[in-house]
Amino acid sequence: MVKKPVIIIDEEKVRRNILKMTEKVAAQNKEMRPHFKTHQSAEIAGWFKEQGVYRCAVSSFKMAEYFADNGWQDIMIAFPIIPGLVKDYDKLAENAIIGIFLSDPSAIFFLKQSNYPLNVYIELDTGDHRSGISAEKQDIIDKIIDELKTTTRHNFAGFAIHNGESYRTIGKEKIREIHERNMKILENFRYKDTMISYGDTPSLMVSDDFKPVDELRPGNFIFFDYMQYKLGSCNAGDIAMEVECPVVAVYQDRKQLIIHGGAIHFSKETITESDGKVHYGRIAETVPENGLFQEESYLESISQEHGVVSMPKEKIRKYKVGDVIRIIPVHSCLVAEIANEYTEKKSRRVIPKMKN
Amino acid sequence: MVKKPVIIIDEEKVRRNILKMTEKVAAQNKEMRPHFKTHQSAEIAGWFKEQGVYRCAVSSFKMAEYFADNGWQDIMIAFPIIPGLVKDYDKLAENAIIGIFLSDPSAIFFLKQSNYPLNVYIELDTGDHRSGISAEKQDIIDKIIDELKTTTRHNFAGFAIHNGESYRTIGKEKIREIHERNMKILENFRYKDTMISYGDTPSLMVSDDFKPVDELRPGNFIFFDYMQYKLGSCNAGDIAMEVECPVVAVYQDRKQLIIHGGAIHFSKETITESDGKVHYGRIAETVPENGLFQEESYLESISQEHGVVSMPKEKIRKYKVGDVIRIIPVHSCLVAEIANEYTEKKSRRVIPKMKN
Repeated sequence: MVKKPVIIIDEEKVRRNILKMTEKVAAQNKEMRPHFKTHQSAEIAGWFKEQGVYRCAVSSFKMAEYFADNGWQDIMIAFPIIPGLVKDYDKLAENAIIGIFLSDPSAIFFLKQSNYPLNVYIELDTGDHRSGISAEKQDIIDKIIDELKTTTRHNFAGFAIHNGESYRTIGKEKIREIHERNMKILENFRYKDTMISYGDTPSLMVSDDFKPVDELRPGNFIFFDYMQYKLGSCNAGDIAMEVECPVVAVYQDRKQLIIHGGAIHFSKETITESDGKVHYGRIAETVPENGLFQEESYLESISQEHGVVSMPKEKIRKYKVGDVIRIIPVHSCLVAEIANEYTEKKSRRVIPKMKN
Repeated sequence: MVKKPVIIIDEEKVRRNILKMTEKVAAQNKEMRPHFKTHQSAEIAGWFKEQGVYRCAVSSFKMAEYFADNGWQDIMIAFPIIPGLVKDYDKLAENAIIGIFLSDPSAIFFLKQSNYPLNVYIELDTGDHRSGISAEKQDIIDKIIDELKTTTRHNFAGFAIHNGESYRTIGKEKIREIHERNMKILENFRYKDTMISYGDTPSLMVSDDFKPVDELRPGNFIFFDYMQYKLGSCNAGDIAMEVECPVVAVYQDRKQLIIHGGAIHFSKETITESDGKVHYGRIAETVPENGLFQEESYLESISQEHGVVSMPKEKIRKYKVGDVIRIIPVHSCLVAEIANEYTEKKSRRVIPKMKN
């Protein structure tokens, strides 16, 4: 019997997702630098190595340390320079190629305090408006490049872009539109001897045109999730993560059941369906022929440890206390981040990951 | 220089919040059973012991184990029975008084497999509609009591209610209204030799009338947070938690700056202001005379590791890369849950907590 929420991953699907993506990237003659924040597991990272992938991206210094300790020697910390970490970057760079984002010109000052050469990528903002220097500000970018080349020992490696906009739209057409605009912008940044690194799963799933880009940096595609499915970037059958939760109470009259599984397992990521329905995840179908999701069945609300699942009357009748219900999360990266380990779906073997 | 988001707690304020609450509960001649999910720290739990508090509530088996290991001998697991954990409850109950919620009649079946006596509380739903048996179903409740008394070795300890509704309303008056309705309902559950345990910080902050209740179970009040402040259950000066985040980029023209501090530090809990503004936290004032929050300054959006802070032009001008910005989180319990440790505000000493 399940004692607590169990984060399940389907190794077969993960390996298939990895294979498909590496083949696609190779067919485009691009380099692959998968984003490992999605899994944070040295074992899963090994499945990439089997496909000839030796570069990775991470989103924190801690993850960079973890993967360096596990033998990865070309790691991009896809996050702006944190001035307090300069000496720590140094230590990592003694034994590995470490990339970092320059997202504000004033961060160069801190780079000068670092002794080992880092691969510095100017992070461009092509419209996402998270971190990155606006791609419209050519004068500022030119000045940064001059300063990087003349006043630091670091290598100006090129440009990096995270196309976060693709997560705020719905549908392949819209994602493709944003992606094509980005490709046009990036044509202007094809500098001699430097590269362009581009990332996000949705664009990579819906497009085949990455002309100005040298390196692709998708992350989420190994697990996918309900959000990716709704964005249009995967099929339901590609989703490789689910969370098994113990049912602790069933309220037939309310058409709701209570699970152990809350904000500390799912984070508080919601999705809004086209009919306005807001929820935290879908309920997996128990009869495979019916598809992946049980119809009109949602993880309706969550508090710290509790989850409230809503289902139609004829479905809820089938559940009782002690059962396990499988939830397809809205955003697998956040579930993975909080998890301490994964359990493989068929073998039930534990796959370790970085500890929080 | 700050290397990563640091969860700060102000010991002086926490101790003051604890003292005020224990005095209030004592003045009402009620017992105090603070909910330790808010802090998950044996050291902070010790500050309660100094005030004569020897009972606690937790929201998971793991927390119960942690506090039992740290010498707590009267622990209520304020969560429905998880059938898979029955043998584990047993082990804990060898050396401590362990309480548990019965939130579905069918869970009695699993209680029968347990060897050590547990304190079983029938969880009542007075309107919150999370877990709990509807307080209107007197017939079902009577049947449960009969069955508990005649067929299990466990102690029918009484009734437990979590007034979660108070978190979905705004303003003292509304919270008081719900609370008074609950008190009326609970009058019907004053059974001989059994107790009523009632919890939630907002009701305890706005009311002095807990007549039918024996035991009070507030949790969040030790730290408070922006949500409690907006609900009307604390003053800004009572908030004892903030998160120090490194500033990694400043975009004057966008009136935004980027911090290291995202969903993995704040969870994805939002609050909606009366003007419709949705955000993940407020920015702490740097000039104490101006109050606690910087005006029109918000943690506007978050992704896994990034936070985007929006501020008026004249404020954002004061920040540069390498600075630290202090965020008052929307919900301190979720920040604490994800944290690995706290840092005390004045002494900068580390206060350990349960590991995730």
